[in-house]
Amino acid sequence: MPELRQDPISRCRVIIAKNRYVRPHEYHKVASRVESIQCPFCEGAESQTPGEILAYRDPESSPDGRGWRVRVVPNKFPALESFGDMSRLGESSGDFTPAVGVHEVIIESPRHIKSLSELSTQEVAEVFRAYRDRLCMLRNENRLAYGLIFKNVGAAAGASVEHAHSQLMAISFLPATVQQKWQAAQEFHDQNKRCVFCDLAVQEQAQRVRLVEVSRYCVAICPYASRFPYEMCVYPRSHQSHFESTSGQVLEDLAGLMRRLLAKLERATEGIGYNYLVHTAPFDTGPVPHYHWHVEILPRLSTAGGFEWGTGCFVNTVPPEEAAERLAQLEI
Amino acid sequence: MPELRQDPISRCRVIIAKNRYVRPHEYHKVASRVESIQCPFCEGAESQTPGEILAYRDPESSPDGRGWRVRVVPNKFPALESFGDMSRLGESSGDFTPAVGVHEVIIESPRHIKSLSELSTQEVAEVFRAYRDRLCMLRNENRLAYGLIFKNVGAAAGASVEHAHSQLMAISFLPATVQQKWQAAQEFHDQNKRCVFCDLAVQEQAQRVRLVEVSRYCVAICPYASRFPYEMCVYPRSHQSHFESTSGQVLEDLAGLMRRLLAKLERATEGIGYNYLVHTAPFDTGPVPHYHWHVEILPRLSTAGGFEWGTGCFVNTVPPEEAAERLAQLEI
Repeated sequence: MPELRQDPISRCRVIIAKNRYVRPHEYHKVASRVESIQCPFCEGAESQTPGEILAYRDPESSPDGRGWRVRVVPNKFPALESFGDMSRLGESSGDFTPAVGVHEVIIESPRHIKSLSELSTQEVAEVFRAYRDRLCMLRNENRLAYGLIFKNVGAAAGASVEHAHSQLMAISFLPATVQQKWQAAQEFHDQNKRCVFCDLAVQEQAQRVRLVEVSRYCVAICPYASRFPYEMCVYPRSHQSHFESTSGQVLEDLAGLMRRLLAKLERATEGIGYNYLVHTAPFDTGPVPHYHWHVEILPRLSTAGGFEWGTGCFVNTVPPEEAAERLAQLEI
Repeated sequence: MPELRQDPISRCRVIIAKNRYVRPHEYHKVASRVESIQCPFCEGAESQTPGEILAYRDPESSPDGRGWRVRVVPNKFPALESFGDMSRLGESSGDFTPAVGVHEVIIESPRHIKSLSELSTQEVAEVFRAYRDRLCMLRNENRLAYGLIFKNVGAAAGASVEHAHSQLMAISFLPATVQQKWQAAQEFHDQNKRCVFCDLAVQEQAQRVRLVEVSRYCVAICPYASRFPYEMCVYPRSHQSHFESTSGQVLEDLAGLMRRLLAKLERATEGIGYNYLVHTAPFDTGPVPHYHWHVEILPRLSTAGGFEWGTGCFVNTVPPEEAAERLAQLEI
């Protein structure tokens, strides 16, 4: 059973997940391109994954058979255990609990494609609808604290399977990075009675120096303090705290935008890997005026080295103003 | 001039260092082994680096000529500017100041070696003495806040030159990770009148489940909440807050221990890259009872993916108890 541990000094949290040892390509040594001989995510290979939790499929097709468009399955090598005792225990050197939560894979297409940018906008929209549906369902279970949707593309970004997929991890605690943002946004709202994310989106649209694209419902920028070259952030233009409450219209608009942004990123960085993260508000909160869901896109063109690990401060060699200009101009 | 920026929401700090664009192998795409055609760090190539700041060399030899054992030079592509106006400015979206500080390279040997483990204990001790001497000098200048010594080995760990070297970055602010540890240690001391690091070192020596080695003056463990497989931490056994105040005896003992630990790590992980970090107390503090210098060794066997970036929580597939047992038993 995986364990959740917290460092007594840095407060850093770690999931010790020994069962993931057997995961293929775990120690791929970063060198090689990720490759699967028999892809377990392709149509026809449904029996190679655990049974599906959710699938958008033809009405005549059967669960765990052919005929699906998007398919959500439990991760075969989960970093978290679905059920278990969540009581907190102590160890002399720190805090200890079983790592309870949910670890799922969202398979984005029945075809063996490598990038979301190879899908049509409608297909991408279904992927984002699957994110929303799974988050809604997990939130309604009332047992977990936070759900993160993320995508690893390329070995440098932590991917071990090539077929386009994303992941959902829902956990029993509010993670440090979310807690930090939540608190800063709360303080800003207490002082100014405004949402700091809304402010930022409006300012960036007015200044136009870090703007990549404004779509009907969303805005994409290169953040002022970008940690990585070509880092991007996408906000809905209207205030909304929870991603899982997003309307179909906004999701479809977001899907088109994400498809274009990832195609541009792939061109600008010659296909280097990236991660994207869908940040929503904590599960146990209703709509709030201070928090705003957003998508972070983190290209892995540079490598975090000793300075970054030691200080938490990043060195970025591409100013976001230049990155935004290049990305905005790229024809795709 | 590099800029120091802070994100208004995450409080994350970033150095935008455009001049590092030209750094060789910057975008090495993680794939390739780091290689230099003409190594700028070898004896005889002294003119290829900026002039030396410090060198341990034969009394008859001349600065920036042959005859040195350890050589410290400014980084040719610094992420920080040595001098500049440090006044804080605002930008609508965040905090902005010029990124003032020092970025130096410690060349560990005149011979083209790749690992510190290839040096004798006496040679390694001289490298650690160079760390100490440079930190002392910078601390005495009274203009910077913190100095971090770090080492990147292998492309996966952010290295761009193969020849064994480490780096020193001294900065004008206390980094987030250090601030966090400092504060937690202060709170622990306020409550218990003990140093949390001393407690930890004593407990680990008593429990012997995460112990790698106890030397005369130091102890090496795999931390309870290890983020990475085979992560290690080294503490001096007697309380000392500042690395730069370490005696020659302790440094020599540390050197022998580090040499053995790195040789073991290289065997256990088949030469995968790693970072190590020497954490000391902030420059503007005298000896304090609550903080304790330490060396972190972070192997890069696994890759931080979307979950880690999104939550700050790490997934580690090798329990530190197993890592410690394996490392302790390895013959080198």
